[in-house]
Amino acid sequence: MHFAEQRAAPYSMKSSWHKRYTVSNNLNATNNVLAAVVESGIDTHVVHLGTMGVYGYGTAGMRIPEGYLEVKLDTEDGREVRKEILYPSDPGSIYHMTKTQDQLLFAFYNKNDKVKVTDLHQGIVWGTQTEETKMDERLINRFDYDGDYGTVLNRFLMQAAIGYPLTVHGTGGQTRAFIHIQDTVRCVQLAIENPPQSGERVRIINQMTETHRVRELAEMICELTGATIDNLDNPRKEAPENDLYVANETFLSLGLEPTTLQSGLLQEVQDVAKRYADRCDLSKIPCRSLW
Amino acid sequence: MHFAEQRAAPYSMKSSWHKRYTVSNNLNATNNVLAAVVESGIDTHVVHLGTMGVYGYGTAGMRIPEGYLEVKLDTEDGREVRKEILYPSDPGSIYHMTKTQDQLLFAFYNKNDKVKVTDLHQGIVWGTQTEETKMDERLINRFDYDGDYGTVLNRFLMQAAIGYPLTVHGTGGQTRAFIHIQDTVRCVQLAIENPPQSGERVRIINQMTETHRVRELAEMICELTGATIDNLDNPRKEAPENDLYVANETFLSLGLEPTTLQSGLLQEVQDVAKRYADRCDLSKIPCRSLW
Repeated sequence: MHFAEQRAAPYSMKSSWHKRYTVSNNLNATNNVLAAVVESGIDTHVVHLGTMGVYGYGTAGMRIPEGYLEVKLDTEDGREVRKEILYPSDPGSIYHMTKTQDQLLFAFYNKNDKVKVTDLHQGIVWGTQTEETKMDERLINRFDYDGDYGTVLNRFLMQAAIGYPLTVHGTGGQTRAFIHIQDTVRCVQLAIENPPQSGERVRIINQMTETHRVRELAEMICELTGATIDNLDNPRKEAPENDLYVANETFLSLGLEPTTLQSGLLQEVQDVAKRYADRCDLSKIPCRSLW
Repeated sequence: MHFAEQRAAPYSMKSSWHKRYTVSNNLNATNNVLAAVVESGIDTHVVHLGTMGVYGYGTAGMRIPEGYLEVKLDTEDGREVRKEILYPSDPGSIYHMTKTQDQLLFAFYNKNDKVKVTDLHQGIVWGTQTEETKMDERLINRFDYDGDYGTVLNRFLMQAAIGYPLTVHGTGGQTRAFIHIQDTVRCVQLAIENPPQSGERVRIINQMTETHRVRELAEMICELTGATIDNLDNPRKEAPENDLYVANETFLSLGLEPTTLQSGLLQEVQDVAKRYADRCDLSKIPCRSLW
């Protein structure tokens, strides 16, 4: 299970140094483990945590498939042929770009050396506790709410808990894919328990359970908490509004039962954000990485 | 002009160490120069030497375009939309794979930071001298004929000069794209003199002038020199036979006048391979990198 990558888009965009660190760390980490698998001669299944961001967010009304896209091509002699290709990537940051380059590493080692690979294209994780971490307070996961590592929902939750307006970038019309941390853990387990067959191409699975616009999330949290919304200039280069339709049948067919925002959000507000609000460092909240 | 990459497919495949060196060197080199261009704030045109090998050699009767491919997609509501995408890559070695990953670096920095980039997808270079190097014997270029760095035609030329059978891998049915070193230099000059406009996508140009099957090349050289052919097992994982149709209008329209194998090969045999044959180290000729 390959988790050894610099994991934050804003962090990857903070400076030239951060770009170079992210590229060197992420690509060498992935290549090193694949080269080691080949060198060892052991029949290994590599599971990798990728991101929905490899697809980009401009889909022209298409449903995003699980990794592979069927396209039609015109040949020189006027025939039309169908080909299945790796979904054309469109990363929005250096971090996301390294994940699109990881895909090419996986495709090559799979083709040339028959390495078995499952690449999980994960949405934005929310939530803090899993069944295991709930067993003792000392097992609780980290909860990032800062501008670099805090994913959008966690930032909103902490902001609501301390009476800070929810910081929505632009109109909040960006649609993103989400998954609860408990479901993430379950997906990783299902991926490991269901390896590809020998000779099978890289298995790509979309690891997300629902999509929402950022402003919908903010409104949901306002309803639960009475927080207000502050629309800020978007620090990122991205479309102000986008739709997002995502295929996610694989994990559902393997038995994943999603934790929905509607059912899990209130618990997160009460048990995590409010409970630990006194530890919050307000200076960490603004997103200071601009691109 | 970014030439700072490990340049040999066989070298990249010699061991785990060589794979890791090639990935780290090539991707960090490209990312470093792009990150430096952005950090400097200088309006720079980056020209990069890539390879025809990013396209792969299984084209299903299609003509390989200069970088971008028009595909047709079916949307969820039954419409057909046309999109132009980066040609789906299919690298045959770690070396070639890094060049497909370079393309994603260029696309990202071009989209996000408007960096002007020309990526040259070069065929296999043959020949030794340019107009400039001919001016004095001390200016002569290196001539690699060994199993790691020697490109196929140079290996054949040296083999013929020393009476060693021409080592054809498999049937020699592999079709590859070629360009003379004089034309390579001219193409680099033309690329630098014709930068993309501000805001233009990455300009990809195929830098090749003719295609040949490997066994055709061997036969041409046998006719010129009386050499014999030795069909060896192919050390590489690749299709035994393939066709290759390549678009190369851009450089021709900019004024490139190709040096053809038919016109230039005899000179190469006489002026380089035979003249320096006494320096040849026979132990270096076999390809010892297997994949």
